[in-house]
Amino acid sequence: MEKITVTLGERSYPITIAAGLFNDPASFWPLKAGERAMLVTNDTLAPLYLQPVRQQLESTGIEVDQVILPDGEQHKTLAVMDRVFTALLEKPHGRDTTLIALGGGVIGDLTGFAAASYQRGVRFIQVPTTLLSQVDSSVGGKTAVNHPLGKNMIGAFYQPASVVIDINCLSSLPARELASGLAEVIKYGIILDGEFFCWLEANLDALLALDGKAMAYCIRRCCELKAEVVAADEREMGQRALLNLGHTYGHAIEAHMGYGNWLHGEAVAAGMVMAARTAERLGEFSAGDTDRIISLLQRAGLPVHGPESMAATDYLPHMLRDKKVLAGELRLVLPLALGQACVRGGVAHDTVLAAINDCQKPA
Amino acid sequence: MEKITVTLGERSYPITIAAGLFNDPASFWPLKAGERAMLVTNDTLAPLYLQPVRQQLESTGIEVDQVILPDGEQHKTLAVMDRVFTALLEKPHGRDTTLIALGGGVIGDLTGFAAASYQRGVRFIQVPTTLLSQVDSSVGGKTAVNHPLGKNMIGAFYQPASVVIDINCLSSLPARELASGLAEVIKYGIILDGEFFCWLEANLDALLALDGKAMAYCIRRCCELKAEVVAADEREMGQRALLNLGHTYGHAIEAHMGYGNWLHGEAVAAGMVMAARTAERLGEFSAGDTDRIISLLQRAGLPVHGPESMAATDYLPHMLRDKKVLAGELRLVLPLALGQACVRGGVAHDTVLAAINDCQKPA
Repeated sequence: MEKITVTLGERSYPITIAAGLFNDPASFWPLKAGERAMLVTNDTLAPLYLQPVRQQLESTGIEVDQVILPDGEQHKTLAVMDRVFTALLEKPHGRDTTLIALGGGVIGDLTGFAAASYQRGVRFIQVPTTLLSQVDSSVGGKTAVNHPLGKNMIGAFYQPASVVIDINCLSSLPARELASGLAEVIKYGIILDGEFFCWLEANLDALLALDGKAMAYCIRRCCELKAEVVAADEREMGQRALLNLGHTYGHAIEAHMGYGNWLHGEAVAAGMVMAARTAERLGEFSAGDTDRIISLLQRAGLPVHGPESMAATDYLPHMLRDKKVLAGELRLVLPLALGQACVRGGVAHDTVLAAINDCQKPA
Repeated sequence: MEKITVTLGERSYPITIAAGLFNDPASFWPLKAGERAMLVTNDTLAPLYLQPVRQQLESTGIEVDQVILPDGEQHKTLAVMDRVFTALLEKPHGRDTTLIALGGGVIGDLTGFAAASYQRGVRFIQVPTTLLSQVDSSVGGKTAVNHPLGKNMIGAFYQPASVVIDINCLSSLPARELASGLAEVIKYGIILDGEFFCWLEANLDALLALDGKAMAYCIRRCCELKAEVVAADEREMGQRALLNLGHTYGHAIEAHMGYGNWLHGEAVAAGMVMAARTAERLGEFSAGDTDRIISLLQRAGLPVHGPESMAATDYLPHMLRDKKVLAGELRLVLPLALGQACVRGGVAHDTVLAAINDCQKPA
């Protein structure tokens, strides 16, 4: 079992990583006998994990209710979040309840925001079931739902009480979703840890084969890197923005193509190549390093070109709605080396457009 | 001009109270030239105040957009809040925008929660236009929208950057709404300040006549009392709950009768009498003091009986959804004397029902 602490003063919390956690009564700390909880999951995961998790909780003396939401990014909305409130109020659950987010990033983000908002804040536990949510969205307290005009535009900074990562969940994950998670894994190497990037080049095949030891190390290292960044900058005033490498471009792809058509990690993968090309055009990143990024992404089964149906000019309106925009000016996360990145304002739109064009699929 | 500070460390903020603030360019601090703002108001207030406020802001060099919502408690919903997000994203406004809540409690609560949630938190300024919001909801950072199953069930603790109270607004306020605000004013006297209760007994006629000096003192005293409570207990772990005197019963009336049919202050007025009767039945409050409360409420034009169409048993299901409920048990705010109150758990439901019956209108 791997255990990390996210250090945030009185809001510090543990991340536990192991195979078979759903069978351990201690996993769902800090829930204890006599307390109530609301399990939030989706209709894809419910048949797989709802019964074992419920059973574990109930055998510990916890009273569990449940709400099952439709699966998919297109359902990460205020209207779907309202169903969680309805479920809570029908029983009714009080301010002393605990929400359990059992699912991927959509369930985690939506449930986290519901926990932040229900009665102005109740406790919640993240139980991420996808690689993407295990290494990224379940750690750090960013919660949100989407708006038709922008992804993650409505939300809160709200920390979970604990994060429970059972790597056995990955065996039921479709290959495309595993790859989507690997995009965020590779991102950590690029922005924060060149040595980890090299480790990924050496161990990608083991990860694709779901080798338990490699996967546990990989998830722990990503959570460690993210926990360090979040501890230093919880509300994204500075360094935390680096975690958005590829996301400004990627969010444009997701918004333009319709949420759910391109997976988040797929859009981020193409976006990271665009960021690398932008940095290259500014003379701050080497073409050789871009090639190493492209090669690793491709080995992971990820796209390295933008969607064919999307022109470079289609990106900008979406990019200008990015939360990093200040006084109408784009601020981009750009790589400087493998293991180092920066936030850059004042990049000419022409440079951005040219870099996006560099990443169009050759005819 | 009266000025108070709500002391909350780095989240401290000023409350400014005066007649004619909308004509003073310094009023909308901390907004400054070159910044952007989104004015949120309703269709009743827009014809009265939108132009003067816009003009003042624009003459200071602030770029102002606006969104006008339908008036009424029944519109304090997630769906109506979403219109604020749409207005912000259409322009689009960035994380550096400021929301201005120009209106009563509904606009203030909804806009505050929108500010807490838009891009995970942007700045906002409260410009309360009703007595109720001036003395209560605009101070203290409780923001929320309603759910069909419970009032204020979805929200955040989120502090404004400043509160701007122009008492000239009260001259356009319908008499019923002025009375509704006086219910919360009287509440402060009951729970925190017996001397202020006596001042109200002596000065109620001046307040009803909108005497400027009396009104400015009254609003300042209420804001001071609330600011002290909030500074000591921002997230309502203890003392802050006292501000809910009458609200647990009152919320039941509002929910049962349909939001907007009984004004909030009207429901709280009847609820305070019910709380006093409950305390009387527990031997903790004198019938003479209940009579003084009833007399003052009646002079203010407020109801002191529950709705005729509502049986005592209709209250409990709503009361059990109150945010103070812990482990399924009601916790009630009860007066102990004029100027002193407490939070009490474990009151028998029969006692609560009997006290509600004490307040039924005589046939």
